[in-house]
Amino acid sequence: MSGNTLGLLFTVTSFGESHGPAIGCVVDGCPPGMALSAEDIQIELDRRKPGTSRHVTQRREPDQVEILSGVFEGKTTGTSIGLLIRNTDQRSHDYGKISETFRPGHADYTYWHKYGIRDYRGGGRSSARETAVRVAAGAIAKKWLKERFGVVIRGYMSQLGEIEIPFESWDEVGNNPFFAPNAGIIPQLEDYMDAIRKERDSVGAKITVVAENVPVGWGEPVYDRLDADIAFNMMNINAVKGVEIGAGFKSVAQRGSEHCDELTPDGFAANEAGGILGGISTGQDIVVNIAVKPTSSIAQERRSIDKDGNAVMMATTGRHDPCVGIRATPIAEAMLALTLMDHALRHRAQCADVQVTTPRIPGRIA
Amino acid sequence: MSGNTLGLLFTVTSFGESHGPAIGCVVDGCPPGMALSAEDIQIELDRRKPGTSRHVTQRREPDQVEILSGVFEGKTTGTSIGLLIRNTDQRSHDYGKISETFRPGHADYTYWHKYGIRDYRGGGRSSARETAVRVAAGAIAKKWLKERFGVVIRGYMSQLGEIEIPFESWDEVGNNPFFAPNAGIIPQLEDYMDAIRKERDSVGAKITVVAENVPVGWGEPVYDRLDADIAFNMMNINAVKGVEIGAGFKSVAQRGSEHCDELTPDGFAANEAGGILGGISTGQDIVVNIAVKPTSSIAQERRSIDKDGNAVMMATTGRHDPCVGIRATPIAEAMLALTLMDHALRHRAQCADVQVTTPRIPGRIA
Amino acid sequence: MSGNTLGLLFTVTSFGESHGPAIGCVVDGCPPGMALSAEDIQIELDRRKPGTSRHVTQRREPDQVEILSGVFEGKTTGTSIGLLIRNTDQRSHDYGKISETFRPGHADYTYWHKYGIRDYRGGGRSSARETAVRVAAGAIAKKWLKERFGVVIRGYMSQLGEIEIPFESWDEVGNNPFFAPNAGIIPQLEDYMDAIRKERDSVGAKITVVAENVPVGWGEPVYDRLDADIAFNMMNINAVKGVEIGAGFKSVAQRGSEHCDELTPDGFAANEAGGILGGISTGQDIVVNIAVKPTSSIAQERRSIDKDGNAVMMATTGRHDPCVGIRATPIAEAMLALTLMDHALRHRAQCADVQVTTPRIPGRIA
Amino acid sequence: MSGNTLGLLFTVTSFGESHGPAIGCVVDGCPPGMALSAEDIQIELDRRKPGTSRHVTQRREPDQVEILSGVFEGKTTGTSIGLLIRNTDQRSHDYGKISETFRPGHADYTYWHKYGIRDYRGGGRSSARETAVRVAAGAIAKKWLKERFGVVIRGYMSQLGEIEIPFESWDEVGNNPFFAPNAGIIPQLEDYMDAIRKERDSVGAKITVVAENVPVGWGEPVYDRLDADIAFNMMNINAVKGVEIGAGFKSVAQRGSEHCDELTPDGFAANEAGGILGGISTGQDIVVNIAVKPTSSIAQERRSIDKDGNAVMMATTGRHDPCVGIRATPIAEAMLALTLMDHALRHRAQCADVQVTTPRIPGRIA
Repeated sequence: MSGNTLGLLFTVTSFGESHGPAIGCVVDGCPPGMALSAEDIQIELDRRKPGTSRHVTQRREPDQVEILSGVFEGKTTGTSIGLLIRNTDQRSHDYGKISETFRPGHADYTYWHKYGIRDYRGGGRSSARETAVRVAAGAIAKKWLKERFGVVIRGYMSQLGEIEIPFESWDEVGNNPFFAPNAGIIPQLEDYMDAIRKERDSVGAKITVVAENVPVGWGEPVYDRLDADIAFNMMNINAVKGVEIGAGFKSVAQRGSEHCDELTPDGFAANEAGGILGGISTGQDIVVNIAVKPTSSIAQERRSIDKDGNAVMMATTGRHDPCVGIRATPIAEAMLALTLMDHALRHRAQCADVQVTTPRIPGRIA
Repeated sequence: MSGNTLGLLFTVTSFGESHGPAIGCVVDGCPPGMALSAEDIQIELDRRKPGTSRHVTQRREPDQVEILSGVFEGKTTGTSIGLLIRNTDQRSHDYGKISETFRPGHADYTYWHKYGIRDYRGGGRSSARETAVRVAAGAIAKKWLKERFGVVIRGYMSQLGEIEIPFESWDEVGNNPFFAPNAGIIPQLEDYMDAIRKERDSVGAKITVVAENVPVGWGEPVYDRLDADIAFNMMNINAVKGVEIGAGFKSVAQRGSEHCDELTPDGFAANEAGGILGGISTGQDIVVNIAVKPTSSIAQERRSIDKDGNAVMMATTGRHDPCVGIRATPIAEAMLALTLMDHALRHRAQCADVQVTTPRIPGRIA
Repeated sequence: MSGNTLGLLFTVTSFGESHGPAIGCVVDGCPPGMALSAEDIQIELDRRKPGTSRHVTQRREPDQVEILSGVFEGKTTGTSIGLLIRNTDQRSHDYGKISETFRPGHADYTYWHKYGIRDYRGGGRSSARETAVRVAAGAIAKKWLKERFGVVIRGYMSQLGEIEIPFESWDEVGNNPFFAPNAGIIPQLEDYMDAIRKERDSVGAKITVVAENVPVGWGEPVYDRLDADIAFNMMNINAVKGVEIGAGFKSVAQRGSEHCDELTPDGFAANEAGGILGGISTGQDIVVNIAVKPTSSIAQERRSIDKDGNAVMMATTGRHDPCVGIRATPIAEAMLALTLMDHALRHRAQCADVQVTTPRIPGRIA
Repeated sequence: MSGNTLGLLFTVTSFGESHGPAIGCVVDGCPPGMALSAEDIQIELDRRKPGTSRHVTQRREPDQVEILSGVFEGKTTGTSIGLLIRNTDQRSHDYGKISETFRPGHADYTYWHKYGIRDYRGGGRSSARETAVRVAAGAIAKKWLKERFGVVIRGYMSQLGEIEIPFESWDEVGNNPFFAPNAGIIPQLEDYMDAIRKERDSVGAKITVVAENVPVGWGEPVYDRLDADIAFNMMNINAVKGVEIGAGFKSVAQRGSEHCDELTPDGFAANEAGGILGGISTGQDIVVNIAVKPTSSIAQERRSIDKDGNAVMMATTGRHDPCVGIRATPIAEAMLALTLMDHALRHRAQCADVQVTTPRIPGRIA
């Protein structure tokens, strides 16, 4: 109820604060018999971890995951999987001012009014540090989806501030600190970010995530639509302010004759739908865009109020990502994986016996 | 599990097909003691019902709601509220071709693969006819939110196809068939829609929904964020392909110094956040945009396949909205009301004892 | 949240009051493709309906069920199934006293304090009339379990007041108004009930329910144990005060060497466990006993208080079952069916891929 | 879904195996602002922990709990509380035979068929070791219920094997290893257990749990009845085979005139109902009995089969409780506390505004 559990059949229940002793989660619903090691999870955590370039926060966290349960002799047992990540770099400093004031654009003011108490150290529970937990859980979902159905989930940065990043190749995404699918644009992105940092400002980003090889038929038709659950999970990522499936907001100005993907025996003629129709996967690529707002923590002096309602000026110093969108790619991939895995299991529950002889046409034809 | 129940504490469980005997729902979790009559619900249903202008479907449905339970001597009793709407205009005709083929842009193909059986009459369960049920349930939520907290939820069309509709006044929204907040633009919208219909095509729309007077502190901070639940519920509306909170996708190109709303003793200096920070309401207006794709049912001949995988050409005739976005405004309002009511109850459960002396600053200052 | 939905994957969401216009429910999660007609449901409703002998309430309700959705051309479609039963015999009379006082042993006093309002006509929502809805939903679960897995669910009265009823044959259960599995004892039961009625009193009963052919492996091991869900659903039946699985309370005085069923290649050597070990079905018969308290509505004068807290004397006249346990058998069967179906679907979700070569040994050997 | 989460609004999500590195849980939904320390939890864990007398298992586990999150400066923050207990005494030995055979009365056979894989070390996930986690979570619920509503939850052993234990005083419960409320009977219980151990056998027990000062009005009326949730949670305890509320199975032979508690201005005249009517608390003591079966692990040779279906003889050696009922009292208290806390929060969500002037009459009059 209190918003720390995700999913219905494949669930992640998360705990932990930015500067507490540890973060972690319980992953429940993983089918038995899948090979799983800490390394399988670590590889995804390392993609998200801080301190890997000058363009992200300089907090040093190894984000070393420990599997506490649910795996026996290298295989999942079907019981709940406890994951633990100790916090190691909770640099002690004076929180005095932050504890009495509300940082603009942050959850400080809302937490305070909701709970009447808040762990102000590094944002406490509202810190994006919690997203490491999702990446860890998402690694399990990704692995199962890949092994069981061949589903591949990948993301990239499609826009950084005003700079649109043309997609060139998946191969480039891992070669730069931005998850940009384009080698040529990297110098421009680096200069851009250096300028932002110099201005003690931050900037937004757009991330695109794609799931390939999703079978046709996953998702519910009315209220737990696959696209609705994707939107839910994406908007559950810190700093996300918008979600699009397929054509997204472009569809507002489209005609039906343009938007509605024709079907042919050789495949769909287009993928404006983004792989989902009527809340159910079509078998085409699932394509999702998210808008990540600029980091709220900036070092410029800004207006705010304190706990007594008095006007104050404050700048947020410390170690912060100048663009939280940069590290959002593995998080968004994880959230898409968690959503798909939940629906894969739902589908088995209800429709395990369904046999349809109609050919499943491939995704978008060339 | 199968996607016919919405909400955690205030729930709507829906049933019914486009051409079956009835649609309806069970609304559970409404606090006891609120005055409620069928008229309270009917007034909202009438705003959504078909056949009210030449720009919407000509199906004639009075959408008369019957309250079957949960209300005694004019007041809610705290028990579940059964709502029933009989279908009256299921015009009988030959469904032959539709039963064997898949309409482009529709859920036909995905339903078929998921279930191996489908009620093809008028789209069956995937028909937007089901949204009447949400409007009915939403009317109950709207009433409670208004009476208990003074929350006002209103929506309008902010774009029709390529035509952006400048907001002028809430007063105009009820005076035209488009829910447009602007009297001067109506002739242009009418001409535009007449042309679309003449071309046997359809078009998308953008709807904006606003909730005023929402208290600060509603929403969960990590996974059931208020904005995530809004995104979920909006994307659960048929034909919606994108959701934005506040600045939405505009935030991609914003700087932190521009996006992050400053706080002053007189109120927030801006509302780029759209009334939600860290998943929790700020007390400012909650502002949501949704992209509604063009209607999939168009009378132009298009390519598709039949159940055996053979190529066919098909046009979708019958009575259809040339822009499903037109009737989406009351539906989007209902979905926002259902989301907020659920979180209002969640908040009472966990935080009933919280007392904070910090002033709750008003929304955006002039 | 408010206690009108049962189940996780196969759900029943119920509405309706004893003297309102109708009762009904939404059944969600039924797999597609199963033949289903109103008659399939009616046959179970007729077993529970009132007025069939002098030993049950004389209220005349045909309990005619209407299927409003979810079935197309005689088969389930996988979408939600709306069921409606109109109330026809809400005999109008003076409720004056009942509306101001609290009947001993009834929910009147607790409802009043919980909700501050109550529909006092015939007990409103707390009436056992609601159980018709469960029997209707249970009929769907029973049918699916039977067709898909060969599961047979049957119950009988094993004790009426002080009279223990020895099990002789399933064949007798349908031949008498008590659901007693023993022809010879019927005259004694009839005399007993006649005496109870003459004394204007009521009496309790014990019901035994058995599920045969349940596959090994259904149920969760820690918190949603199959036996826990059975206990939950049985205790959710009006007037039930106790639940036993297998040896039940007899196990308190047993030794481990006596209670723990040995396994042999030919089958289990006994079934003290009642078909469930570690929360998971063993493949043996699932055996459940429930204690049904005596009807609270009796015509003797008893002490109570009114809404102002004043002492009153009151007798509950009207049409009441002198032993609510008599009609409890089909209800208990329905609740067991709903529980098993939910777990059947859960099992498919998580363990669909499991293949074990160990022989599944049969139930109790002769 | 997979049965490792308990509760709706106050939830416990558990992980961990008997011989894995740790057990633990995430507690979600605790209201903010309550003082909480590891000591508050430890005091309850120490009541359950093994090795405290010769009548329980000799496994040595300090069961030291670590709070990982959700508490800041000594107070709950309203965010999820991570609890961790490291396993320290996983004595390494040869599991060879246990890994290939199924212990009678254990979950071995059912786990194996469900999952196709099992952590056989000490029973893995099915071990009663997991109940430490519930006691830890229950300590939080107990504390909140006590501080917020004055609710007191206590249990005792009311029967050991054939020996009924007359209730004399709560004061005695903490003075003996059996949780027996009777000093004089202790020598008899000790002799009895010594004899059982000598016979290499085990025995069952009956536990009674009582909650005092529960306000009237908690619980849902139809499907999530307070008594149903209690039955669910009690039957979720390892080895429990029966649950009674109030008169329980005694009500089968009762008359309505005997069972139905009269109300008087001075209080209820009796408490046959066990504090719950119509699924809702009456304000009287909530009284629950549970039947705990004899421990399945006994050192006598018994018949079983191995993974290939061959007959084997096996005795379960190692460190086991000769009566699992002995340590069940704090577990049952915890489960009752968790149930009541969940319903306390539910009640606030829906009925926060209800004001009734009818006096709340006290529990049973003298």
